[in-house]
Amino acid sequence: MPIRWEQQYAQRVQGMKSSAIRELLKVTEQADTISFAGGLPAPEVFPIEQIAKAAQEVLQTRGSQALQYSATEGYYPLREWAAQQMVKRGVQASVDNILITTGSQQALDLLGKVLMNPGDKMLVEAPTYMGALQAWSCYNIDYVSQPSDDKGIIIEGLEKILQTQPKCMYILPTFQNPTGVTLTLERRKKLVELTQQYNIPVIEDDPYSQLNFEDEPVPPLITLAESEAEQNADGYQGNIIYLCTFSKVLAPGLRLGWIVAPAALISKLVQAKQGADLHTSTFDQFIAYKLVSDGLLEEHTPYICDTYRARRDLMLALMDEHFPPGINWTRPKGGMFLWVTLPEGMNSMDILKDAVEQKIIFVPGTSFYPYGEVKNTLRLNFSNASPGQIEQGIARLGRVLRKAIGKG
Amino acid sequence: MPIRWEQQYAQRVQGMKSSAIRELLKVTEQADTISFAGGLPAPEVFPIEQIAKAAQEVLQTRGSQALQYSATEGYYPLREWAAQQMVKRGVQASVDNILITTGSQQALDLLGKVLMNPGDKMLVEAPTYMGALQAWSCYNIDYVSQPSDDKGIIIEGLEKILQTQPKCMYILPTFQNPTGVTLTLERRKKLVELTQQYNIPVIEDDPYSQLNFEDEPVPPLITLAESEAEQNADGYQGNIIYLCTFSKVLAPGLRLGWIVAPAALISKLVQAKQGADLHTSTFDQFIAYKLVSDGLLEEHTPYICDTYRARRDLMLALMDEHFPPGINWTRPKGGMFLWVTLPEGMNSMDILKDAVEQKIIFVPGTSFYPYGEVKNTLRLNFSNASPGQIEQGIARLGRVLRKAIGKG
Repeated sequence: MPIRWEQQYAQRVQGMKSSAIRELLKVTEQADTISFAGGLPAPEVFPIEQIAKAAQEVLQTRGSQALQYSATEGYYPLREWAAQQMVKRGVQASVDNILITTGSQQALDLLGKVLMNPGDKMLVEAPTYMGALQAWSCYNIDYVSQPSDDKGIIIEGLEKILQTQPKCMYILPTFQNPTGVTLTLERRKKLVELTQQYNIPVIEDDPYSQLNFEDEPVPPLITLAESEAEQNADGYQGNIIYLCTFSKVLAPGLRLGWIVAPAALISKLVQAKQGADLHTSTFDQFIAYKLVSDGLLEEHTPYICDTYRARRDLMLALMDEHFPPGINWTRPKGGMFLWVTLPEGMNSMDILKDAVEQKIIFVPGTSFYPYGEVKNTLRLNFSNASPGQIEQGIARLGRVLRKAIGKG
Repeated sequence: MPIRWEQQYAQRVQGMKSSAIRELLKVTEQADTISFAGGLPAPEVFPIEQIAKAAQEVLQTRGSQALQYSATEGYYPLREWAAQQMVKRGVQASVDNILITTGSQQALDLLGKVLMNPGDKMLVEAPTYMGALQAWSCYNIDYVSQPSDDKGIIIEGLEKILQTQPKCMYILPTFQNPTGVTLTLERRKKLVELTQQYNIPVIEDDPYSQLNFEDEPVPPLITLAESEAEQNADGYQGNIIYLCTFSKVLAPGLRLGWIVAPAALISKLVQAKQGADLHTSTFDQFIAYKLVSDGLLEEHTPYICDTYRARRDLMLALMDEHFPPGINWTRPKGGMFLWVTLPEGMNSMDILKDAVEQKIIFVPGTSFYPYGEVKNTLRLNFSNASPGQIEQGIARLGRVLRKAIGKG
């Protein structure tokens, strides 16, 4: 008799949920459906030739190293480069503060594993990145959420939550996924001050800050924490754990991210990573190091920003034109997403059903709330669709929304 | 005041242990120390040119796909290829039975996450792969172990353990790490029969069977389970979960492995993997698929086997010559490791201290037992050291052992 697997699963599996995106991606396999649902970069901006050249050089000059097992911490020169990036921003980081991960998603998993006991509380902004909720749901943690507005997470009420001693806080302060919103400098300072006061570790997830369209940089939380904290010869000691990735500026298919954290925490994360996948692809790390040390990012990132800025501008202009009154949306200054709020009482899941029929898809906002508690929001991605698809897609979505509002 | 991180860790972190290998690797950084400690393939056998050619073709013809986010399950053609490998061996597998993982190590982590509750018992052979113990220790499980001899795990006494309902069993039946021993066909049949009778899932870890030096293939457990189990149109339904990897026949730096399991279990593992790293490097998967579909393994594996067979033969001949009486070792027919048993009462950790002074290192056997319960064993790797290093290294180790035995 075959094993009944559903009876074999560990308790933590009950928390796991399938991503709404996964189901939606199946719909996009239909050739004429336009998708604003994914979180994908535009493939046109991948530096394919440069990657091809770097791959050849790496294999020709250090092939036997690039294909061999390597240190769990990551490729040493790449860690040095990542530390250097932080030093440039005023954070006293060294290689001991850096762990290379198999994409930022792995950073989230490892942090959950090392920091969170079942029943521990994670404080998140609402809405937040659904991949973080997925990474942690299997550790059977609880979420406490604090709402955000067009200036990012709302500070009023935050201290009251911090007093209840959440184990950790998670935030995407810059060009947030899903809203596109950036936390203001004033709120950043207050957030760092409060979390330091209550000794709460903060995971600052920063995949998008390099996709800055307006040249108005806002400092990452980790740089503010450092300046507040006592400078220490042992390297970075603050309460902010900083996550970054090559997925948005190089190529997500390489699965390369990194964690910046106090060395004590890094060494525990290294133990967890050793059990999780031994190390991240040596070959992909060598390629990335070759590219960044040749200065590719400085040369290539402005091109990505130009491409995405044009798409954002186009999408916003078309939304102004096609969307009916009563609907609001964010106007992000960078990143890949914008966030739409429908009138109270409307459910974006219902809208999605009509939209699928019109061959246009998006992600309903419920997935971005820990307990799916808000129904009238949705996320649009503007980086992956071509200008032609954005034109057609927003026109279609406008028709769907006008019809729905008319009904309501 | 900086956060005291040691007070922040989750309870599961208490189980995590650093690998003895990691500390030893630091010693090997001294240029004149010879290492039999690692589990590394010989870099000379990496098909560097073929990988370089495949990387170019992949980027030229499908670059924008190869660098993009991709399905958590893995690259579809690569999953088809993996399923095909099983079909050739008589297992009714389809793509739905395959999940591509970031190396076999990730397969172990995902299986622990999906199957094991704290306090659940995992049945392992003793000694066993230390990486599996590391992957699972953070899930706070218990181990029950059954000893092995030169024919693999001992069947006598196994049924009594199965009656205590361990949650799962883990075994490396072919050219085992650390012993190099292969489970006999007779014992394989008995093991499959017993675990099916008691409905115990068995994780069959098979990274080494392709490194077969004697052309005496033994069927994987999964093929025996299938022939015993009722054939089912829905695809593979047996109790054996089969793990395989490209690390030993292609290149470990690419971090590519796969799981073969019933479709219901695969879909839960996919959910877990989505939280863990979204997916495995698309680029590395495309390269591997290009290579295997061009028939590289059929052409290249015999060359790896020739290289390793010669090293094994050399190491065994030198051990016969240099090692003192009272010491026993295995004579593996494939794989990368052999296993040395010292006289009762000797401790291989003490031997290692002397060995490090003589600039020769190995892994003490304690790391391969769940509770470090056996002290007089050690593992030697014969794949990574050159013939010249094997000659010098075994001579040095012989001197250390003769001195130690003389003392005793």
